[in-house]
Amino acid sequence: MEARIRERLAAGKAAILGAMEEFLNRPETRRSLDLPWEHDLPGRLLEYSSRGKMVRGNLVLLGYELAGGKGAAALPAAAAFEIFQSGILMHDDIIDGDQVRRGRPAAHKAFEADLRRAGARQPGRTGESLAICLGDIALMLTFALLNETREPARNVSAVTAYWGREFARVGAAEMEDTYLAVSDDFPSEERILDLYRGKTAGYTFIVPLLSGALLADAPEELRGALADYAAALGVLFQIKDDELGLFGQAEALGKPVGSDIREGKKTIFWQKLMAASGPAERERLESIFGCPDLTDGMIAEVREALGAKGVLQEVETLSAGLAREAEAALGRLPEGPARQVLGGLIEASLRRRA
Amino acid sequence: MEARIRERLAAGKAAILGAMEEFLNRPETRRSLDLPWEHDLPGRLLEYSSRGKMVRGNLVLLGYELAGGKGAAALPAAAAFEIFQSGILMHDDIIDGDQVRRGRPAAHKAFEADLRRAGARQPGRTGESLAICLGDIALMLTFALLNETREPARNVSAVTAYWGREFARVGAAEMEDTYLAVSDDFPSEERILDLYRGKTAGYTFIVPLLSGALLADAPEELRGALADYAAALGVLFQIKDDELGLFGQAEALGKPVGSDIREGKKTIFWQKLMAASGPAERERLESIFGCPDLTDGMIAEVREALGAKGVLQEVETLSAGLAREAEAALGRLPEGPARQVLGGLIEASLRRRA
Repeated sequence: MEARIRERLAAGKAAILGAMEEFLNRPETRRSLDLPWEHDLPGRLLEYSSRGKMVRGNLVLLGYELAGGKGAAALPAAAAFEIFQSGILMHDDIIDGDQVRRGRPAAHKAFEADLRRAGARQPGRTGESLAICLGDIALMLTFALLNETREPARNVSAVTAYWGREFARVGAAEMEDTYLAVSDDFPSEERILDLYRGKTAGYTFIVPLLSGALLADAPEELRGALADYAAALGVLFQIKDDELGLFGQAEALGKPVGSDIREGKKTIFWQKLMAASGPAERERLESIFGCPDLTDGMIAEVREALGAKGVLQEVETLSAGLAREAEAALGRLPEGPARQVLGGLIEASLRRRA
Repeated sequence: MEARIRERLAAGKAAILGAMEEFLNRPETRRSLDLPWEHDLPGRLLEYSSRGKMVRGNLVLLGYELAGGKGAAALPAAAAFEIFQSGILMHDDIIDGDQVRRGRPAAHKAFEADLRRAGARQPGRTGESLAICLGDIALMLTFALLNETREPARNVSAVTAYWGREFARVGAAEMEDTYLAVSDDFPSEERILDLYRGKTAGYTFIVPLLSGALLADAPEELRGALADYAAALGVLFQIKDDELGLFGQAEALGKPVGSDIREGKKTIFWQKLMAASGPAERERLESIFGCPDLTDGMIAEVREALGAKGVLQEVETLSAGLAREAEAALGRLPEGPARQVLGGLIEASLRRRA
């Protein structure tokens, strides 16, 4: 990614964090979240959120700017989106049994460690319970903070309705994901791409960009171009995510290598690999995907098969097509620095390593 | 409870359910929540919600009426409150390990049964994951539905901010509850009553009544009287809840007898009993509270000790004082049918059996 785009995103993150910090540290927020044994839940939320890249919050700001919005008025909405993201990740990590998030212990594992130190009973189970609660807290603060956006009430109200419905859809996509991981359904490529459109493209790209645009009362044409750009980029991004889950390095990712294989996640790579394999190969792969005692050898075996069966090549072709779609939609957006950043994101998605 | 008060609450529930059904069955809601293996998440939410008494939703309507609000304008807010309640109960039951809710399987147990029938792996763990997601969905739909309230935008916005903060506080109180159940802290009576004020009084009585009042722009004096009434009634209600958890009948409660003892819940009864016991008695009680293999004999032993140590008597005195406080605040509310219902709730709380 070009340095100036990276700088722009870093500046956006700093501004979003500032808005989040101001909100979380306000006396009435702190009073609502004060516990006899934990006086800094707001600090926990802030620290957890600060470890993310805040792409979604940045996209809210960029959508707002592209629609002619001026100044910092969209910052509460951008920070609210990132608080939601923190909450949903806390739940996600419990559901997926992930122990590490953004290079540090997942929220439930951090609570578990605290409980262990305090000599509490059932620290594992209780750590999960506390992280369910803290996730809920984040989900609720989302709407309190969004509500502070200084734009006409009907625009804020439109975004509130939009988030309610779309964030509910994120929950539904997560259910589908969870179900696919444990069922013996063999989903079609189309069903998996549908899930990618709903989960990553919708939630990570379309919703933030359109929220920013709605806050600034964007015309329908602009919203259409943003949605097309975001839909293509989002699927591309998810495919890259899957690829990194298979081929990425632990240090760069901040999570263990092979966790998608261990969980038996039904990614587009998995689908194409299975579809390209004969019965004996499939049986072997089925014993690897979802295996709790996954070895480095098994991970290497999967990687090799993906190359040998031409899956990597197929996915690369698919990704290139998505990048072209995103570029085409980009051409329909108003020129300027915000569009440059969105262009840079296409590049970066194709090349990212973490 | 007098028949006409019961009828009024039943009519309120029917109207709230109608508003919830209309919202959940709308095509755009159904589209957001459609899954390849489950086409009726809205129906699940509706059925789950319909099994509750909908006291909170009714209180939203009553607060609205007391503040001079007219007609059905507060129904979306009342239904939204009940959708939130369904979501938080789903999470609560996972956290507490409760298997039964409102006389039927808890949400995670219902999913578990479905998964078992479908031959999915890890149905227990996955059932919990799906219920975390469905709970999140409910929490999100809450704000979409609240946003549809047809009152001036600044009133709806005030309630949105209020719910965001107060529902976050519910999460914090749940954390405290969870922590107390597994730690060896011996909380004071005051700390337990604080938790009751925060959790039950705040969430179940103060927030719904004041939300209704805020929607109709109630003056500060009226809001103060409502808050005083609700604070006293809420603590009374929680104490009765604890009492029923110890002495109630399984069929009436719709959940197993003794579950609070099995979970080691630190109720006001538990606190007073421990405080009144000598070292040997305390040791025996400690082996009973939190015991996973709780027997009927152990439950009987706790019940007997509560009588013998005078705890029942003390709590009755406390309850009577709270009822008087609630009555006094009631006198400051405008006369009329809404006030009569609130008066009936004091009576009913003192006498309730389920």
